[in-house]
Amino acid sequence: MLEALKEKVFKANLDLPKHGLVKYTWGNVSAVDREAGLFVIKPSGVDYETMKASDMVVCDLDGNVVEGELNPSSDTPTHAVLYKSFPEIGGIVHTHSTYATAWAQAGIDVPAMGTTHADTFHGSVPCARFLTQEEIDKGYEEYTGHVIVETFKERGLQPLEVPGVLLHGHAPFTWGKDADAAVMNAVVLDEVCHTNYMARQLNSYAPELPQRILDKHYLRKHGANAYYGQSGQTH
Amino acid sequence: MLEALKEKVFKANLDLPKHGLVKYTWGNVSAVDREAGLFVIKPSGVDYETMKASDMVVCDLDGNVVEGELNPSSDTPTHAVLYKSFPEIGGIVHTHSTYATAWAQAGIDVPAMGTTHADTFHGSVPCARFLTQEEIDKGYEEYTGHVIVETFKERGLQPLEVPGVLLHGHAPFTWGKDADAAVMNAVVLDEVCHTNYMARQLNSYAPELPQRILDKHYLRKHGANAYYGQSGQTH
Amino acid sequence: MLEALKEKVFKANLDLPKHGLVKYTWGNVSAVDREAGLFVIKPSGVDYETMKASDMVVCDLDGNVVEGELNPSSDTPTHAVLYKSFPEIGGIVHTHSTYATAWAQAGIDVPAMGTTHADTFHGSVPCARFLTQEEIDKGYEEYTGHVIVETFKERGLQPLEVPGVLLHGHAPFTWGKDADAAVMNAVVLDEVCHTNYMARQLNSYAPELPQRILDKHYLRKHGANAYYGQSGQTH
Amino acid sequence: MLEALKEKVFKANLDLPKHGLVKYTWGNVSAVDREAGLFVIKPSGVDYETMKASDMVVCDLDGNVVEGELNPSSDTPTHAVLYKSFPEIGGIVHTHSTYATAWAQAGIDVPAMGTTHADTFHGSVPCARFLTQEEIDKGYEEYTGHVIVETFKERGLQPLEVPGVLLHGHAPFTWGKDADAAVMNAVVLDEVCHTNYMARQLNSYAPELPQRILDKHYLRKHGANAYYGQSGQTH
Repeated sequence: MLEALKEKVFKANLDLPKHGLVKYTWGNVSAVDREAGLFVIKPSGVDYETMKASDMVVCDLDGNVVEGELNPSSDTPTHAVLYKSFPEIGGIVHTHSTYATAWAQAGIDVPAMGTTHADTFHGSVPCARFLTQEEIDKGYEEYTGHVIVETFKERGLQPLEVPGVLLHGHAPFTWGKDADAAVMNAVVLDEVCHTNYMARQLNSYAPELPQRILDKHYLRKHGANAYYGQSGQTH
Repeated sequence: MLEALKEKVFKANLDLPKHGLVKYTWGNVSAVDREAGLFVIKPSGVDYETMKASDMVVCDLDGNVVEGELNPSSDTPTHAVLYKSFPEIGGIVHTHSTYATAWAQAGIDVPAMGTTHADTFHGSVPCARFLTQEEIDKGYEEYTGHVIVETFKERGLQPLEVPGVLLHGHAPFTWGKDADAAVMNAVVLDEVCHTNYMARQLNSYAPELPQRILDKHYLRKHGANAYYGQSGQTH
Repeated sequence: MLEALKEKVFKANLDLPKHGLVKYTWGNVSAVDREAGLFVIKPSGVDYETMKASDMVVCDLDGNVVEGELNPSSDTPTHAVLYKSFPEIGGIVHTHSTYATAWAQAGIDVPAMGTTHADTFHGSVPCARFLTQEEIDKGYEEYTGHVIVETFKERGLQPLEVPGVLLHGHAPFTWGKDADAAVMNAVVLDEVCHTNYMARQLNSYAPELPQRILDKHYLRKHGANAYYGQSGQTH
Repeated sequence: MLEALKEKVFKANLDLPKHGLVKYTWGNVSAVDREAGLFVIKPSGVDYETMKASDMVVCDLDGNVVEGELNPSSDTPTHAVLYKSFPEIGGIVHTHSTYATAWAQAGIDVPAMGTTHADTFHGSVPCARFLTQEEIDKGYEEYTGHVIVETFKERGLQPLEVPGVLLHGHAPFTWGKDADAAVMNAVVLDEVCHTNYMARQLNSYAPELPQRILDKHYLRKHGANAYYGQSGQTH
């Protein structure tokens, strides 16, 4: 069932330690088959060195296991909520990558201070609020998804224009048109969290990128008039 | 004698440079056999590239060598005190890992600021005081153990709920149910020391994790109601 | 056409990830054949793992493609302007390397604070201004080149004496007598951005290098009286 | 001539990039044969990937080349002065390692803040002053050696008790009983520059290590009563 997608999700999960985004079994990648209404996700707490493509777990959009011997990632309900609420996304990544996690713990949005950011995120990456006791009691992982969706709704953000979020006191989630794009967005987010951190230490008055340059860089890589790469559209 | 445990301790020691926690021969891992009342520890100052499983040294819980050609780690008396005082632990790691050492030198507790921390440590990781001249004279390494035990007693901490400590001006010790768990806890402690450092540089008012989220993350991985991983209990 | 130069440019591009200066396909290297009036540059958005020397694209000094199946780097017009305006340079590198990008985002010149800097850059590395809306509209990449040239003219800088620049909110460009020298200058610039950052965090009054030491280090490696290396002239 | 020493110096030079202390051909290691009154040093600006043991250059204690096809390191006169002035040392290392260089650029001594420091350096590592114009004119590299010697004399330091120094605006020199010890001391110095940097950012009031702990750690590894390692004396 969904063997090709399992292979892609498996490989995308292995890319996380390759890019230095996770240690041990931390982190998880999933990808959705919109026609089937199912998504494939990493099993929980399985060693990356012994994990196989066939260990991937298939779930429906309510997060119920449809196929698989192993428990899916404990963050599965978050993935399910995001796939349901953001119909335009195809893959999701969760890591505790060092620099993005530092910003999540600081509890502040990541401002667009450079073109590395603007090539991928069309504006600040928001930091979502802590969950309430009630939300934790009702379902911590599910409500983590709801708080992300609430954050995007309140701020009027489009998920593919700002393909990531920080959770206060926790870490980032990123997404994209597929699993590989979601991984790349996780790499970019961690990198801009590193450079932005240093930029404001160097100069606490360092400005955000002017809107005209933010737009230019974002739009030369995304949308109808993109001209970066070999196809005119890389993400 | 204890050949299987020697093999485990040997491999756990090799994991230290693999995870970037030590340079040269710095650092040491031990593990205890509670029935035999003996623990196995790395020899002192032996090159990791030539060290063999059979070089591991067997000691009793007073730190006396029971078997082995080589001198045990100079920190052996600290390990002995911890095994005696904390009967629930099975393995101990000592490193001078970069970020945890920076906090130890700063002389401050590591607050629980994120879920990476909460997944492993159920509260702040304490920083123990400097030893007095008298304690150094009586036995520096043994009293290092006593000061750790004193710190946990004074603060009412459970060793497996907060499986690590900083020594002011020195570096961390971590422990766990076995050698591998102690190594993983050393990796986690160094990582949270890195992220917490940056979080407070980004925002000096960054709060500690709310108690409700600290509890939620700790308890989804530890104890009777844990549901992370494949067995419901990973540490 | 220019097969030897393609091979050199191809290898120099592979040196970027090897030195940790780029992730994915970020970054590009080019080199010019002054007699032919043509330069060779990396194609846009091609995976470094599958890229071949024959994928390199040949352009004239107006940035028009003369040979090649693939689209050249989207930064090609910047390279073209620099080759036209700085006739003494032979190779150009653009990266979003972490530390140089942090300084670019801070929007400040990189002062000569140490001899690592002085061995390569005979003075501060300037940070060029943001482009205006009009410049973006006329041609973002071409005007990026013009703003670099304007910066060097206004400050009376010689391109081979200060072989690099930061673009505010963007990242560095470096250059040199050939592609390899331009890569080495990119490595040096990123390194001094790292050390200078920490030096001023350690001591906000840390001075710039005295002119006499700046001159001594620069001139022992460059120019008629150089005596570093095996030929008396290494860059 | 001195083939065994050439082999050791060659290998010690290769250890510099292995430990992440140098990029390209930056850095150099030498070792002395006290009976012969000669030292062996790396050639200047030769690629580490093609360098052979037979490329090492033999010099007398005035820095004159006695054997070798290639130019010796441009820092050779500094090494010569140190071997002449510090008869107890057997090997010397010069690098521009990242963290030690940051402190050198900050122009401040490295205080003993932790036991990683105390295991190797019996007190602060001093930062030597900038050279004057007159000293540069008389011989920059030779007077670099004289300024180091002056610093140790003025402060009453023993070269093997504090086996390293920072040069303001430049970088560290370290030394030891042989080339390998000098390399290890370079690794330690860079590491403590990293941890001390962060310790004072975390807590600007972080104290230096109490004298009693500095002494304890230094003396358990060095001198007549050392008990670390397999021989009771590791450095």
